[in-house]
Amino acid sequence: MTSTMGYIWNTLYGWTDTGSGGLLPPSTDSLTQPIGHHVAHPDTKRRMHELISASGLIDSLKQIDAAPAAEADILRVHDQSHYDRILAESALPKGGDAGDGVSPFGHGGHRIAMLAAGGAIEAVRTVVEGQVSNAYALINPPGHHAERSTGRGFCTFNNGAVAAAYARDVLGLKRVAIVDWDVHHGNGAQDIFGGTAEVLNISVHQDRCFPSDSGFREERGHGEGFGYTLNVPLPPGGGSGAYEYAFDTVVLPAVRAYKPDLIIVASGFDASIMDPLARMMMRSEGFRSLVRKLVDLAAEVSQGRLVCLQEGGYSPIYVPFCGLAVIEEMAGVSTGTQDAYTPILGAMGGDKLLEHEREAIDLASVLVSDIH
Amino acid sequence: MTSTMGYIWNTLYGWTDTGSGGLLPPSTDSLTQPIGHHVAHPDTKRRMHELISASGLIDSLKQIDAAPAAEADILRVHDQSHYDRILAESALPKGGDAGDGVSPFGHGGHRIAMLAAGGAIEAVRTVVEGQVSNAYALINPPGHHAERSTGRGFCTFNNGAVAAAYARDVLGLKRVAIVDWDVHHGNGAQDIFGGTAEVLNISVHQDRCFPSDSGFREERGHGEGFGYTLNVPLPPGGGSGAYEYAFDTVVLPAVRAYKPDLIIVASGFDASIMDPLARMMMRSEGFRSLVRKLVDLAAEVSQGRLVCLQEGGYSPIYVPFCGLAVIEEMAGVSTGTQDAYTPILGAMGGDKLLEHEREAIDLASVLVSDIH
Amino acid sequence: MTSTMGYIWNTLYGWTDTGSGGLLPPSTDSLTQPIGHHVAHPDTKRRMHELISASGLIDSLKQIDAAPAAEADILRVHDQSHYDRILAESALPKGGDAGDGVSPFGHGGHRIAMLAAGGAIEAVRTVVEGQVSNAYALINPPGHHAERSTGRGFCTFNNGAVAAAYARDVLGLKRVAIVDWDVHHGNGAQDIFGGTAEVLNISVHQDRCFPSDSGFREERGHGEGFGYTLNVPLPPGGGSGAYEYAFDTVVLPAVRAYKPDLIIVASGFDASIMDPLARMMMRSEGFRSLVRKLVDLAAEVSQGRLVCLQEGGYSPIYVPFCGLAVIEEMAGVSTGTQDAYTPILGAMGGDKLLEHEREAIDLASVLVSDIH
Amino acid sequence: MTSTMGYIWNTLYGWTDTGSGGLLPPSTDSLTQPIGHHVAHPDTKRRMHELISASGLIDSLKQIDAAPAAEADILRVHDQSHYDRILAESALPKGGDAGDGVSPFGHGGHRIAMLAAGGAIEAVRTVVEGQVSNAYALINPPGHHAERSTGRGFCTFNNGAVAAAYARDVLGLKRVAIVDWDVHHGNGAQDIFGGTAEVLNISVHQDRCFPSDSGFREERGHGEGFGYTLNVPLPPGGGSGAYEYAFDTVVLPAVRAYKPDLIIVASGFDASIMDPLARMMMRSEGFRSLVRKLVDLAAEVSQGRLVCLQEGGYSPIYVPFCGLAVIEEMAGVSTGTQDAYTPILGAMGGDKLLEHEREAIDLASVLVSDIH
Ligand SMILES: [Zn+2]
Ligand SMILES: [Zn+2]
Ligand SMILES: [Zn+2]
Ligand SMILES: [Zn+2]
Repeated sequence: MTSTMGYIWNTLYGWTDTGSGGLLPPSTDSLTQPIGHHVAHPDTKRRMHELISASGLIDSLKQIDAAPAAEADILRVHDQSHYDRILAESALPKGGDAGDGVSPFGHGGHRIAMLAAGGAIEAVRTVVEGQVSNAYALINPPGHHAERSTGRGFCTFNNGAVAAAYARDVLGLKRVAIVDWDVHHGNGAQDIFGGTAEVLNISVHQDRCFPSDSGFREERGHGEGFGYTLNVPLPPGGGSGAYEYAFDTVVLPAVRAYKPDLIIVASGFDASIMDPLARMMMRSEGFRSLVRKLVDLAAEVSQGRLVCLQEGGYSPIYVPFCGLAVIEEMAGVSTGTQDAYTPILGAMGGDKLLEHEREAIDLASVLVSDIH
Repeated sequence: MTSTMGYIWNTLYGWTDTGSGGLLPPSTDSLTQPIGHHVAHPDTKRRMHELISASGLIDSLKQIDAAPAAEADILRVHDQSHYDRILAESALPKGGDAGDGVSPFGHGGHRIAMLAAGGAIEAVRTVVEGQVSNAYALINPPGHHAERSTGRGFCTFNNGAVAAAYARDVLGLKRVAIVDWDVHHGNGAQDIFGGTAEVLNISVHQDRCFPSDSGFREERGHGEGFGYTLNVPLPPGGGSGAYEYAFDTVVLPAVRAYKPDLIIVASGFDASIMDPLARMMMRSEGFRSLVRKLVDLAAEVSQGRLVCLQEGGYSPIYVPFCGLAVIEEMAGVSTGTQDAYTPILGAMGGDKLLEHEREAIDLASVLVSDIH
Repeated sequence: MTSTMGYIWNTLYGWTDTGSGGLLPPSTDSLTQPIGHHVAHPDTKRRMHELISASGLIDSLKQIDAAPAAEADILRVHDQSHYDRILAESALPKGGDAGDGVSPFGHGGHRIAMLAAGGAIEAVRTVVEGQVSNAYALINPPGHHAERSTGRGFCTFNNGAVAAAYARDVLGLKRVAIVDWDVHHGNGAQDIFGGTAEVLNISVHQDRCFPSDSGFREERGHGEGFGYTLNVPLPPGGGSGAYEYAFDTVVLPAVRAYKPDLIIVASGFDASIMDPLARMMMRSEGFRSLVRKLVDLAAEVSQGRLVCLQEGGYSPIYVPFCGLAVIEEMAGVSTGTQDAYTPILGAMGGDKLLEHEREAIDLASVLVSDIH
Repeated sequence: MTSTMGYIWNTLYGWTDTGSGGLLPPSTDSLTQPIGHHVAHPDTKRRMHELISASGLIDSLKQIDAAPAAEADILRVHDQSHYDRILAESALPKGGDAGDGVSPFGHGGHRIAMLAAGGAIEAVRTVVEGQVSNAYALINPPGHHAERSTGRGFCTFNNGAVAAAYARDVLGLKRVAIVDWDVHHGNGAQDIFGGTAEVLNISVHQDRCFPSDSGFREERGHGEGFGYTLNVPLPPGGGSGAYEYAFDTVVLPAVRAYKPDLIIVASGFDASIMDPLARMMMRSEGFRSLVRKLVDLAAEVSQGRLVCLQEGGYSPIYVPFCGLAVIEEMAGVSTGTQDAYTPILGAMGGDKLLEHEREAIDLASVLVSDIH
């Protein structure tokens, strides 16, 4: 087994066509003026990749090519009708929408979505097969909001679920844990894997941010899957104090109890303190600390198998530094790059665990005991 | 009669949704990467308006409100089916295309197109009724490529043709001359008015630039309109020398022979030396000189009635200075603003009439004698 | 006295040159890649103005021209050396920085800054002289972080302080209250007016956001001004619940106790739920409610004299709707425009006053009793 | 010797900071409004690299790392004072300008410029040493306008001259031919190598485009270098007809007569039909044809040693297709990618050699006989 970390990026991940609106489609009816950069514009991901390159970190990583996923890979977790609709709309001159009207993709968007799902599969495959020690797949479009029958929230196919199903069905793993630290609820995996204990889906997210009607602690899965969906909604405004506490008292104990063969991280950086689509206060060092816990956890429970899949993150200037910190930590490498924003962001507070945050997390920690 | 010049701009002219491509729609099939600014991005027009404002010129102009055109106004020159298709596609979430696949408009684009046509009408109406001495309508989207049954070349409805037909049918004018100095062929008016002598359509344009299969001298109209379509294709690379000669030997004599009640200028600034969509070499002073000729001509033949309608122009940095020069000249006002680009652009040559340009223009001047 | 509301915008407010970085200056040393849109890019303000126009609201407002402030206007609240430095750096080819290294301005930036301060003066003057009932000055660059001897936080000159000093020294008012609802601390007015009771400076802001070392309740002014600086720091993550409570229990009682001749609002929209530079959760309706309270308060205590001066706000897509709501409410006009983002943002919570927010605000309300 | 082509790109080439203007620095004095994308914005180069990647061509190329040039490498062709000034201005917060006021670079710009020159050196070194068969260095900023004592025209250091001098002084080559097809005059090499016969500098460019006062046929070098500067100014508006004729009758004969050990191409794509900074009419197939001639020429005279160095090219949407064609041809590989713009651009004419173009070129061909 190698000790080198795997890394996936593909030029086409930076070519997603998020359209000419800012978040809503431009319209004279709603008086939403066009704008040159959508909140989910792929430049944010590309800029993260470029910092990985410009910092020299990329020289310490093993670059893995992403092959497109096969239709059969997608159909393990999505309906045929959803797949077919994406394929059909992808052939339209302006492309289509993943499902909720605010998730535009362009002509040929299907191809990029297949490449994102394929990147997730490759990351998981190379880790499980031992070609790399662990891996970060900087894929785009994201996936964690995509449900069995529809895309949502900028997500077309659920890359993480596709990779987890591949790990189970093709690579023969028995148990996969998904740790979703994207600031929004991991509703897609909850929808797809809610009825099975073969996947543990833990989502730590800002309470009611998106989707605003899911992600509550009371949603715990069903049937055989009861207890294997674990939601940890955090009050808006929290930072590393809340996240550390949530990881220490809920996420780590849950994964330890579950003993997965593989840990997949739904790695969004939209819990960052400069994100326009959420209100949390994480800095790059906070993310570094979280992934440190997961690296150690994976060493303990899953033979070190840890795969991060890129999800959200909407600050084009700050996401790169968050990503750099996480990948440095996973690779066990320091490029010496300073987070340029630390002098400004570091003093803004939010790092101390507040009482109402503790109470919210404690209510979730109770649920860990149902995981076996 | 007032001696004040009229000026039309509407905020929504700056809100056209040209999509997320550069010229072609973005596509992974054709490997055309998305980009934040389409060549026909409305910022170019907005920036021209802002220079009109920031220079103080606007204080010397009478601002006229644009009202949306009525459906009946459009139907004077377009098929019902074209109108209906635009209306239908305008209701789609991503809007549609004006007709040729490279003329995208967004949701609600119909509304802006109606406002552009309405701006053209208002400019003509206020001039003909004597409320202003002459007028510049800085409208968008442009119109001169739109044909009776379809939009083309970023144009949805043919604003100039709509205004000319309004002048004829509603205001009772007998003869309207269209002078099209946009660098591309005025194919729309040729298509719409080719069979009538009530509109003289003169287009001075780069030979075979767009549409590449029209705009030839041999296209002269048909039936009663024969001779009243006059194309003056110029070889690529020409500048003010060629334009001055074309105006002096073709445009002015033709309009003098025609004796119109109104002159409408299809005023594109894409013959400028920095335009990405053509290869001519005009500077702001060249446009100033051309409009001077037309102001004098209008004084001579059409009671001073001169209306410029904005057509193309794709240099976001240089179009504003071209527009400022033209409007200053029409208004008889100098703001003292220097064209900031003159030191760079002035020395690039192209101002001298070349022999092959002279020959091409002379072949067109012969055709003037058929105008009565 | 008229019942029409005044409104100020100038094209040059949209021309501030925020440089080619995102927040920090681009640098290969710090590995901060250039980007086309700075967080404080003037497009956000221009887009707000364009929504005021496109919605038709502008037709109900009296547009007031901004004249540049005079040097003497600036020197009422700033050191000569600061003024001279801005003037000198404004003459450099690339301009300079207002003072803290993250507040770039371009060549000629001094002119725009003088025009912003002048706009603030005009808004105050026309309201005090009764030409308009109240006023919104959509000025840029902002001002509330600028201190006596330096600019900071994107602010060059302290427009609000300049206007307050003008009101006192030129218009003869005795007492001016500044209500600063920008999400960041109004440190500039605190610095400038901390020693006088002639200006009451109330700042409601996110605790330690910017500047991270000021804005604490313990900062209360000094000498004769003790008690007339009133800071209300709010915990991150709060929304309209916290703001309403802060206004009802601190801001309104304080202003009532003070009985000002004029209320100036430092109106930033960076407390909005999509702002990248803070973590609060206000929506447009929340701002509408706050300004309603101030309109009523002004009617009660300051003969209706209420002037909003634009400060921060960094969501180019959402700020326009916040601004529209505030101006509609001040003008007593409804355009019928719906906030297009309400369906998405409305359900995200944050509107309920939380216990730790209440406690923080209650600590500030105690301080009101020292105002006379 | 390998038959694989070398290719150089570095992430930092895409990070040049071209400032917030369009071509001139933004200024309220000159009323030049800021804009998000300078004409020389590095996105154009990055997009070319991304098409090389997305098309799959990159898999057929040998990627070579660019190391920064050493100071001594620069000083072979530049004055110490120029080098020192760039280094000093690079340390300023906003960086500086390469020399003519329209060539901005940002903080740390010196580092990128050294990396561009270093990329040119590596391309030349690996070709001369036989590690690759030929090479394309997609470097940025460009270099061909930089003169011994100053930068100009977006160029900081003259990458091509640096590489030529390295080839001569370090690699021991006797004769280097520079073929400059960038649409602007290769004034830098003319300035630097005008007095030596060790470098043949042939520049085919639009007459008087930039610099407008150099590039004339009469400029032929001096002293021992007389005859080894060869300028071929082309009339504006020409296309592949003129370029083919210029290559067949001037460039190829001159290089054949010179018998260089290495051919360096100053490869700008600003002669393309969509370039805003010139008026020529080349399409991707035209560039493909030119490089085919040079590949064959190199096989004939310089042991196949051919190195293309990226110079200008200002159409972000079309340059990528031009670059793809050239690199495919040099590599002897077809990816099957169609130039998406051919259907629009192909019919625009300009491909036929015109008489005045022939005359201009014939005047230059006479000068070839002085090359030995
Ligand atoms: Zn997210
Ligand atoms: Zn045109
Ligand atoms: Zn603020
Ligand atoms: Zn060039």
